[in-house]
Amino acid sequence: MSLVTETGEFNLIHRLASISSPYTKSPVIAGIGDDAAVFRTSPGMIQVATTDAFIEGYHFDLSFYQMDQVGYKAMVVNLSDIAAMNALPMLATVALGVPASYSIESLEDLYRGLAKAASENGVQIVGGDTTSSPVLMLSITVIGEVIESNIVYRGGARPGDSLFVSGSLGEAAMGLDLLRNEVDPSLLGNAVWENLVRRHLTPVPRLDLVRAWAREGIRPSALIDISDGLTSEVHHICSASDCGAILWESSLPLPVEVHTGTKEPRSPTDYALNGGDDYELLFTAMPDLLEGMSSDLFTEIGLITEKDVLIQRTDGTCEPLVAGGHDHFRPV
Amino acid sequence: MSLVTETGEFNLIHRLASISSPYTKSPVIAGIGDDAAVFRTSPGMIQVATTDAFIEGYHFDLSFYQMDQVGYKAMVVNLSDIAAMNALPMLATVALGVPASYSIESLEDLYRGLAKAASENGVQIVGGDTTSSPVLMLSITVIGEVIESNIVYRGGARPGDSLFVSGSLGEAAMGLDLLRNEVDPSLLGNAVWENLVRRHLTPVPRLDLVRAWAREGIRPSALIDISDGLTSEVHHICSASDCGAILWESSLPLPVEVHTGTKEPRSPTDYALNGGDDYELLFTAMPDLLEGMSSDLFTEIGLITEKDVLIQRTDGTCEPLVAGGHDHFRPV
Repeated sequence: MSLVTETGEFNLIHRLASISSPYTKSPVIAGIGDDAAVFRTSPGMIQVATTDAFIEGYHFDLSFYQMDQVGYKAMVVNLSDIAAMNALPMLATVALGVPASYSIESLEDLYRGLAKAASENGVQIVGGDTTSSPVLMLSITVIGEVIESNIVYRGGARPGDSLFVSGSLGEAAMGLDLLRNEVDPSLLGNAVWENLVRRHLTPVPRLDLVRAWAREGIRPSALIDISDGLTSEVHHICSASDCGAILWESSLPLPVEVHTGTKEPRSPTDYALNGGDDYELLFTAMPDLLEGMSSDLFTEIGLITEKDVLIQRTDGTCEPLVAGGHDHFRPV
Repeated sequence: MSLVTETGEFNLIHRLASISSPYTKSPVIAGIGDDAAVFRTSPGMIQVATTDAFIEGYHFDLSFYQMDQVGYKAMVVNLSDIAAMNALPMLATVALGVPASYSIESLEDLYRGLAKAASENGVQIVGGDTTSSPVLMLSITVIGEVIESNIVYRGGARPGDSLFVSGSLGEAAMGLDLLRNEVDPSLLGNAVWENLVRRHLTPVPRLDLVRAWAREGIRPSALIDISDGLTSEVHHICSASDCGAILWESSLPLPVEVHTGTKEPRSPTDYALNGGDDYELLFTAMPDLLEGMSSDLFTEIGLITEKDVLIQRTDGTCEPLVAGGHDHFRPV
């Protein structure tokens, strides 16, 4: 085992660069190794850039994350933000703060996770910074591109649009509770346990949906990714679009009902509404716009209205949809 | 005083966004407020991107940095990397990790410093992430542009080129020693003390030189910024360019000779060679290329040779130039 303190900064950068950037391809002209990375954008496209920090003890807990999973997820949360603009990612920079007691091998595992998430999604890691810090922290910036007329903001929803969500909701938050509460996999069945935990540890950015829309010539009217929980993101779309919404509880793509070891058992609906960390896409579109697209990709879960953000419960009653997503100033 | 924990993440982002982005101008189409920032690059240009982390206790010490100085310097170190590609910066994203005990007012001061460094250099802050962390940490990504034929890498130096450095060296490291050792300003004279300390706390990215070269139609052959110390950067250029260099001690733009309170007094030459944090530009060019440019902008300090990196001392003797720049795995 080699400690980062013994290897030295430049050797470390060299070792990590060999993992993260085995090839140079368009649009990257020069990657890791100079003062900045050099790249070329495409004519007729506009560019998008997003940054997310991923900090030990706040965004992840090393008692149940493997190092490669930390790297994988830190990259995915940024790729999901690019998908949420209806864009495709091109390249990423990674700033890494690491306690001096870490081994080089553990950092190589971290970089393998970063590189896996990047290469699975057509992204090249082109540079960054590696330094000491009191806890493990990653700050990733991803730059992507989209044809200008295809970009989708949060603020484009209009009354009469339908509200859709990709995939299923709440499983990632259930997986986190299983891990935190050390629930034995055999209590749920290994396959169920593994699916829920995988949804938390290694989420998938829904770039497949962005690609499908591009193929079909479809553009949603508003689009956001679900990081803080469905309720919170519905409010973001309504606030940015100056409109309301009604969500149908009976239509939500709920997780399976399992006991996740929490003291107060949480319902599948609560997990779906307020769980967070789903990295699914929430979007609005004219109701007939998506006819003909595969229905396994998304579910219609409500309507955009003039005002008020409501949920219609399965018993038919309506009530305000109260935001319960997590605040980043509350530790995990 | 309001604590960040009481304000909530979205209010905080709103308050900070109002400081950092008072206007929207080209090339930015949409800044803070969506999943990613949207911008447009210019036809015929290539883009550069750099990321640097700036972490309390490793890169700065809050016992002598004001919060606005932390923000200012964190931005400058990134802008300096853009200058080191012979490019001009366009926009920046800021990931901010902040202990929950901090006041909103102190974060507003931090953002004022970030915004000042950005606006002084034509940069717009377009987004980022604000989250909890155990110590104050900033990770900034800056994206810039340059005409493709004007980009300058580290690896372009050729034997026969002259070696130049902008401004003066070693003052920032002297300033740091004055602060660390709590040297009384009156011992040096207030003006001297203040100049040295200012060089450390609020360095200036040498984009003026990039602009001057563009005006004069001049392109250096190799270019790097001095963050870790002149010696270290000369080695980087020689290694990337597969060449050697000879540095003339007598030509170095040295700081004034003052006692900085270190136990082993350090010479002005040692500060200039190994001090670091100068954020001046080190570059190579054909000897006659820079004729006619103002000589206050830079000094010729040596020559590029076939091999070996040497220093010719003021007494005429030559010896290997031994790298003594600081390693980022050593705390400040």
